[in-house]
Amino acid sequence: MAEKQQDVIFVGNKPPMSYVLAIITAFSSGNIKDITLKARGQAITTAVDVAEITRSRFIKDLKVSKIAIGTAEMPPREGENKSRMVSTIEITLLK
Amino acid sequence: MAEKQQDVIFVGNKPPMSYVLAIITAFSSGNIKDITLKARGQAITTAVDVAEITRSRFIKDLKVSKIAIGTAEMPPREGENKSRMVSTIEITLLK
Repeated sequence: MAEKQQDVIFVGNKPPMSYVLAIITAFSSGNIKDITLKARGQAITTAVDVAEITRSRFIKDLKVSKIAIGTAEMPPREGENKSRMVSTIEITLLK
Repeated sequence: MAEKQQDVIFVGNKPPMSYVLAIITAFSSGNIKDITLKARGQAITTAVDVAEITRSRFIKDLKVSKIAIGTAEMPPREGENKSRMVSTIEITLLK
């Protein structure tokens, strides 16, 4: 089996600590070298919090190797007929 | 008088379009080569929206030249005695 070296974690509405724990668990499995946090809309702030909490409190040698922002098209809400644009962020953490 | 080539815009609770307009105005003054958006806490999402709206709708040749995240210490809220940590973002736009 090929070793998995990268992981993606989608950040949503859960408390930041659930994602921090997911990162710590993934890195401690030993095979993972980098993890990309992906978030959109209001969860962007949570993703930044997660990266900062993990780096300052738990994994001191963690580096933010890349941050990218973008826009994604979301399907229209019920009763509306225009699709919405939401901002996205991708934060890559490297150990 | 020395020419000002950089500008900083602090993104807070106003609607994204106010900051988009501030960016367009600053760039159209002619002297500004890059603008850094600074935001913290929930305004981080607004800052990303502002960068994305400006780039996709108004200034097509705008580049995001740098994104940095960090943590800032905020004074405690009234009635509390612990200072709070908030995440911050800096997005540099280059024309």
